[in-house]
Amino acid sequence: MIIVGELINASRKGIAEAIRIQDEEAVKKVAVDQKEAGADFIDVNAGVFVGKEPEYLQWLVKIVQEATGAPCCIDSPDPQAIQEALAVHKGTAMINSISLEKNRFDRLVPVVAGTDLKVIALCMSDEGMPETVEQRLRIADRLINDLVQNNIPIDNIYVDPLVQPIATNKIFGIEFLNAIEAITKEFKGIHTMCGLSNISFGLPNRKYINQTFAVMAIAKGLDGLIINPLDKRMMANLMTAETLAGRDDYCMDYLKAYRAKKFEFES
Amino acid sequence: MIIVGELINASRKGIAEAIRIQDEEAVKKVAVDQKEAGADFIDVNAGVFVGKEPEYLQWLVKIVQEATGAPCCIDSPDPQAIQEALAVHKGTAMINSISLEKNRFDRLVPVVAGTDLKVIALCMSDEGMPETVEQRLRIADRLINDLVQNNIPIDNIYVDPLVQPIATNKIFGIEFLNAIEAITKEFKGIHTMCGLSNISFGLPNRKYINQTFAVMAIAKGLDGLIINPLDKRMMANLMTAETLAGRDDYCMDYLKAYRAKKFEFES
Repeated sequence: MIIVGELINASRKGIAEAIRIQDEEAVKKVAVDQKEAGADFIDVNAGVFVGKEPEYLQWLVKIVQEATGAPCCIDSPDPQAIQEALAVHKGTAMINSISLEKNRFDRLVPVVAGTDLKVIALCMSDEGMPETVEQRLRIADRLINDLVQNNIPIDNIYVDPLVQPIATNKIFGIEFLNAIEAITKEFKGIHTMCGLSNISFGLPNRKYINQTFAVMAIAKGLDGLIINPLDKRMMANLMTAETLAGRDDYCMDYLKAYRAKKFEFES
Repeated sequence: MIIVGELINASRKGIAEAIRIQDEEAVKKVAVDQKEAGADFIDVNAGVFVGKEPEYLQWLVKIVQEATGAPCCIDSPDPQAIQEALAVHKGTAMINSISLEKNRFDRLVPVVAGTDLKVIALCMSDEGMPETVEQRLRIADRLINDLVQNNIPIDNIYVDPLVQPIATNKIFGIEFLNAIEAITKEFKGIHTMCGLSNISFGLPNRKYINQTFAVMAIAKGLDGLIINPLDKRMMANLMTAETLAGRDDYCMDYLKAYRAKKFEFES
């Protein structure tokens, strides 16, 4: 399972302020904490700074990698911002995200075509947000085919089936879960990846709902998550679900994590 | 989801003692507690009392129903004990369990044939415990067909795919989970049901592993569980997983349970 740490996002007040005043140490601390908690990629987002996003995104990549050595997940729809960030990025970055929306797709394909970048392919099109398994499969099919035709290896594609709030429609959870399973079966070698906090929108105790939904998604085959890796219950859930899903030889990862007392395995 | 409360089992010391000294109040309290926590059926087991099982099982049914009015899940492989228990049972009981083991099958079919009893059909045969999806499907197929031929409606059959310990083989979790999905798809109208504590055998913090595995099983379609309903985290997990699996209109069950503060929805 690939874990993307989501905390360095300018939509969060503290992060926006740290970016604005160029507080290196504050950003580095959040990066290091996430890496140490188990993040494989550190998401960087400076989307709220209109006009300055390319400059700030490049700065974030530079200091996050100085502090952690970890690859970044470059979180922007703007090709120029992504290019500036990639110009200083070391190793293989992840791009968050391309979609089937024409404007986004046409501008981002030239950035990723023929590279070894990892690409999150969000199931969103100009027809709006998909609700059913079939709608998601249709978008995923076009995205995957177009990306592969642009020389992105299938192993570098992470389809995000797009989580929608369960409070809006009771089928939104199961349609998402079944989409993970369907996409994984249909496209051999593909990965799936998502943020999942939208599932709990409008309900009390969102964190617990998200933690539970993550376990269900792993049961259905999800192999990537954009989360807060400092959420110790979430991390314990992921690890335990991975073990139970058959991805942990001799339960070694579970036992190691359990003994290290790093996460919350308490019942 | 049907919840069977598992606590009135003579393999537990306190219960064995209560049965031995015929302590009605002690047994009734465990029955009432489980019913109030949300159990739909109360499991009754007096298996350790060789020779006295029929008498004790009947006693258990009588006092459990006096105290709760709930139907019992009669937990015995012995046709005579089951008959004694059924003789006093009010309403529709569940039988736990028939299997494809010849001795067990041949003796229990006459008890359940043509009745409206709910029957747990355990995926076990004289060839031993199944490990793969295919082995489970093969046993389930024969069990379901034989039961239907004996006039058990498919809606009264609860297939238990048989949980095996993940510490023994890393595929044992996912093969069980995929078996739930396969059985549910293959036999329209069938139910699935299991106890799941075997999954965590040999590992630390078993309760947490069981709680997590339950969520995964619900994601795969499980609709019955034999558990300790006094485990408040387990009950919160079940309820939340049910909501996320699309079985809760307008999230009403979740919201009601959350507000009642009966279970542990804390993150």
